[in-house]
Amino acid sequence: MREVDMIISKGRILLLDDNDSIIKDGSIAIDGDSIAAVGESVDIESQYTGRRKIDASGCLVMPGLINCHTHAAMTCFRGIADDMELMDWLNNYIFPAEAKNVDPDLAYWGSLLACAEMIKSVTTTFCDMYIFEDETARAAKEAGIRCLLGEVLFDFPSPNVKTPSEGLEYTRMLIEKWADDPLVNILVEPHALYTCSPTLLKDAKALADQYNVPVATHLLENRGEQEQLQKLFGVKATHFLKDIGYLDERFFAFHCVCMDDEDIKIFADHGCKVVHNPESNMKLASGVAPISSMIKRGVVVGLGTDGCASNNNLDMLQEMDTAAKLEKVERLDPTVMSARTVIRMATCNGAKVLGMENHVGSLKASMKADIIILDLNKPHLTPLYNEYSHLAYAVNGSDVDTAIINGTVVMENRKLTTIDENEAMAQVRKIAERIKKSLEE
Amino acid sequence: MREVDMIISKGRILLLDDNDSIIKDGSIAIDGDSIAAVGESVDIESQYTGRRKIDASGCLVMPGLINCHTHAAMTCFRGIADDMELMDWLNNYIFPAEAKNVDPDLAYWGSLLACAEMIKSVTTTFCDMYIFEDETARAAKEAGIRCLLGEVLFDFPSPNVKTPSEGLEYTRMLIEKWADDPLVNILVEPHALYTCSPTLLKDAKALADQYNVPVATHLLENRGEQEQLQKLFGVKATHFLKDIGYLDERFFAFHCVCMDDEDIKIFADHGCKVVHNPESNMKLASGVAPISSMIKRGVVVGLGTDGCASNNNLDMLQEMDTAAKLEKVERLDPTVMSARTVIRMATCNGAKVLGMENHVGSLKASMKADIIILDLNKPHLTPLYNEYSHLAYAVNGSDVDTAIINGTVVMENRKLTTIDENEAMAQVRKIAERIKKSLEE
Repeated sequence: MREVDMIISKGRILLLDDNDSIIKDGSIAIDGDSIAAVGESVDIESQYTGRRKIDASGCLVMPGLINCHTHAAMTCFRGIADDMELMDWLNNYIFPAEAKNVDPDLAYWGSLLACAEMIKSVTTTFCDMYIFEDETARAAKEAGIRCLLGEVLFDFPSPNVKTPSEGLEYTRMLIEKWADDPLVNILVEPHALYTCSPTLLKDAKALADQYNVPVATHLLENRGEQEQLQKLFGVKATHFLKDIGYLDERFFAFHCVCMDDEDIKIFADHGCKVVHNPESNMKLASGVAPISSMIKRGVVVGLGTDGCASNNNLDMLQEMDTAAKLEKVERLDPTVMSARTVIRMATCNGAKVLGMENHVGSLKASMKADIIILDLNKPHLTPLYNEYSHLAYAVNGSDVDTAIINGTVVMENRKLTTIDENEAMAQVRKIAERIKKSLEE
Repeated sequence: MREVDMIISKGRILLLDDNDSIIKDGSIAIDGDSIAAVGESVDIESQYTGRRKIDASGCLVMPGLINCHTHAAMTCFRGIADDMELMDWLNNYIFPAEAKNVDPDLAYWGSLLACAEMIKSVTTTFCDMYIFEDETARAAKEAGIRCLLGEVLFDFPSPNVKTPSEGLEYTRMLIEKWADDPLVNILVEPHALYTCSPTLLKDAKALADQYNVPVATHLLENRGEQEQLQKLFGVKATHFLKDIGYLDERFFAFHCVCMDDEDIKIFADHGCKVVHNPESNMKLASGVAPISSMIKRGVVVGLGTDGCASNNNLDMLQEMDTAAKLEKVERLDPTVMSARTVIRMATCNGAKVLGMENHVGSLKASMKADIIILDLNKPHLTPLYNEYSHLAYAVNGSDVDTAIINGTVVMENRKLTTIDENEAMAQVRKIAERIKKSLEE
């Protein structure tokens, strides 16, 4: 018998491997930050004893969800302005509110609140773009949640940096500072092709290549952007990206609503990945990304909520439900975007988008122990014919009881073990008072 | 000081009146089944004392939600078949499973489980169409939830009735049996124009007119149905309905996805109402109903989840979120279908659809006390800039703590006071085993 730190026992386990294996009575041995073994309960429990044991009978056990696109600190702006034209929303609410209010304090507390919300709705890894990302890294580290973070880069000054080169230097600092961290990973994130000069874009790519980290950006979010870029470059955005050497396996893009077949082929040919943000694309009336075509062509697609000002929550389970339903109604085909497809987008394929597929997104020995446990004993989850169906179409963010990240129990019986959520809420409420005042001025 | 049964004190109260009034520090006096008074806390608490007091500080208080279209007992088929062509889904799964399994036992336990789920996700009134509706009435009565129910009518035999006239007689029995019930109301529900002969349709309308109850049916759910009806009648479905005398203020229709401007005008001119079912329409790839055009033309629109086989939950809060976002992306206009609009669809306008607007759907003295209390002290509901925004875009079904229907507390701290939910779940699991076996035969 080998003694390990923890055993999750007698759960219904979704491995999210290539065969969509489900172990009806399974257990997982966890040692340190990793999975030592996963298998039938009889096998695991005859080979391992756990210093701690979590009884998962009657529960669904699976990899934690991966939110591939957030602006975490924007929890501070949740619901500040809805139901508006994009440019009205941005120019009269979001941009002024950010310019006047974003500082390290907001970035830290807004991110910590986001971490609390994400863990409570089963996300265990997130990919973030915002300002003062060192504060987001600090919050994530404290919360014990895995992340891939980048400082937003653009041509104009931000509350954090005055020039594009300061932005690049700040990103370099992040890369070096967090290089060996078990939870925090850094990428390079130019905001978009319409907010970054070609020089900044190329410098950003060079920095990413130097450190072998990913690059990600907003791309072709709506028709207006598509037309703007065509005018700006005289060629299609994907051609422009190809010409400046952006397209490789370390590049992924958010939204990609306005991609045609040729754009998709270019992405597929170069191994570029896409992050789908259906709720934000709907709320801002951006359009519907051609996700089933992308998947058919072999593009790996992950799922993200986007920030709280355009969603307005970070609930990946609702996002899966919406992703499946939106694609069906848009294509007038109920067979596209199955429950299985959206669940893989939110787990193993999300991990591939972030370049983390060897660590997270599925359950097997040697992977990091990022695991969630959902209680199925609830009216809205009864009866159970099919686990994938429940996850995609019936579960909500409040159904998770226990979350383990990197071998640490970060939530148990819905209580966070790493964060004082009341303090985080109180601090964000104070920040919101300041934001409200600033908009009245 | 007047003594009343209950006071809900110091909440943030949304009245859902014509002015969208919000009382920031409000209280509600409840006596018997009705609201005695609602107003500022200082005023209410100087005039009333309550035998019972519910502290709602830090909470949102509002009318319970109205789910205008369900097939409650279909909780028993939740997730049995997803991601399929409509006819494959109906003919190879739903219809055979129903024919072999629906009996009074399934109707009762499936409905009771649905009532548990609905109360736990803030619905206090639902409108149901299914088989053995007397069992659904019994379940709803026990659960203490308000409802408007009708036995499904069509030309072919059902597990309950062998002929259309038996179906009409069963409906007449329901109308007379439940005539004076405080919670259960009955309507007449022909299934659809393609499943009911003109004779059955006319007989159903005559029955409804005799007792002055509403008539409701599935209508123009998808393109296929629209074409089928055009062939069948040689005229548009709305013209046919007009010709057979269906169109009046007591008529409402579910789905109405394929309505053009003329259809909408006909509905508006006759005071007919529409129930929007966005999640079901998306999941079955039926299409997007032209809801903002309907509202602009003056058609009253309510919201419904449809049954659990095509959603797969009964969560009206998710339905509101989806209704708003779907319309925005379909019209490529973020200003349509605001948070306010979808919340009114799920409350006061839903009440108008069901002909219950003098009793439920908004909060004022003399209305029935159907009230829900949501705890806002949660990470995903922080900070609070706008109550309507949170309700439409951030809240989920599990955020409600307390639900009061007809003056009775039916849920407190998420615990149901009227239903043994564990027994309901156990019974439905047993029924599901039977269903699984029947499909293997």
